[in-house]
Amino acid sequence: MPHTYITDGAEIYRQSFATIRAEADLARFTPEEEIVAVRMIHAAGMVGLEAHVEFSPGMAIAARAALEAGAPILCDARMVSEGVTRGRLPAGNQVICTLHDAGVADLAKQMGNTRSAAALEMWRPHLAGAVVAIGNAPTALFHLLNMLEDPTCPRPAAIIGCPVGFIGAAESKAALMEVLPVPSLIVRGRLGGSAITVAAINALASRVE
Amino acid sequence: MPHTYITDGAEIYRQSFATIRAEADLARFTPEEEIVAVRMIHAAGMVGLEAHVEFSPGMAIAARAALEAGAPILCDARMVSEGVTRGRLPAGNQVICTLHDAGVADLAKQMGNTRSAAALEMWRPHLAGAVVAIGNAPTALFHLLNMLEDPTCPRPAAIIGCPVGFIGAAESKAALMEVLPVPSLIVRGRLGGSAITVAAINALASRVE
Repeated sequence: MPHTYITDGAEIYRQSFATIRAEADLARFTPEEEIVAVRMIHAAGMVGLEAHVEFSPGMAIAARAALEAGAPILCDARMVSEGVTRGRLPAGNQVICTLHDAGVADLAKQMGNTRSAAALEMWRPHLAGAVVAIGNAPTALFHLLNMLEDPTCPRPAAIIGCPVGFIGAAESKAALMEVLPVPSLIVRGRLGGSAITVAAINALASRVE
Repeated sequence: MPHTYITDGAEIYRQSFATIRAEADLARFTPEEEIVAVRMIHAAGMVGLEAHVEFSPGMAIAARAALEAGAPILCDARMVSEGVTRGRLPAGNQVICTLHDAGVADLAKQMGNTRSAAALEMWRPHLAGAVVAIGNAPTALFHLLNMLEDPTCPRPAAIIGCPVGFIGAAESKAALMEVLPVPSLIVRGRLGGSAITVAAINALASRVE
């Protein structure tokens, strides 16, 4: 006998977000932050994630304003750039991932760093006013912080810094919030990843739930 | 002063996997399963995930054998298909995602189901002997189970069923393990997602850590 299940995508979203709002502790978020945190919890399938979600003051408003003004979205991994829902973007924003660009592998060897870090050098022409979405590599976030130590390096409008894992992820995100070169959002600790990062972008891109 | 961090990708992997093996409870897994579970924990950044990881008997061996024999990998989402590391594939395996194929949106309307479920109808010519990787949509996994109720529907070699979320995810994965049409791997409950699913494929594709 066929399995029966909810087949209406909009209804699945409604029930999912209602479940999250019933179970998660969202009281400390501003209204602009709350809709982002809800979508991050949704992507992770994990109530409790919210305890690790940290926005610098004004980040959600700054990132949304940048996207509405047409800012490009700079992604460290193809899983991030592919996950961004194009139909939610408010200004036909460019979604850029330079990881597989020609020259990145060679540059990584020259730099003695990962390809994920080297790929950020290709971001320089797009970086001014952009929204950065790092959802995979701690080395990319560390390298971005080092790039931004140079006062002549263009400033992005906001950084979503959610690399995941056991080596460097917690450290790079803590460093981002300590230095805070621009308004930023992190998931503190080991948790993070492309799905959570994409969820943040998709929430900041449109108020439609 | 520049931030200092480990910049050697291979060393980051080594230390990450060593941390996971020191902290996670992997005793109940076979050796073939253990390397898959370790990579899933790595992708999630979460020791403890292993408690929810379930392989049907022989799944890891069956999936690896299918990939080595050239099986295509059928993915429910672009975040899954983009995440598969092509260099790890043992036989130049095709990686297929039909979600954005022409006709899927119309078919979804006709079926009264999601695009994710409708996209699986396009899998039929590729399904025999394939490795299925569902990392996003519970409706896709439910629809696959319904397709496989027809004895004339071609059988995949193995199913990675790791949809994520609050509505249907736990239920669809429980149904997969109860029916068990072919050897399968799930993350029980709400947890799952594209990164964890990709990690399982990447682990099954190559023994190289």
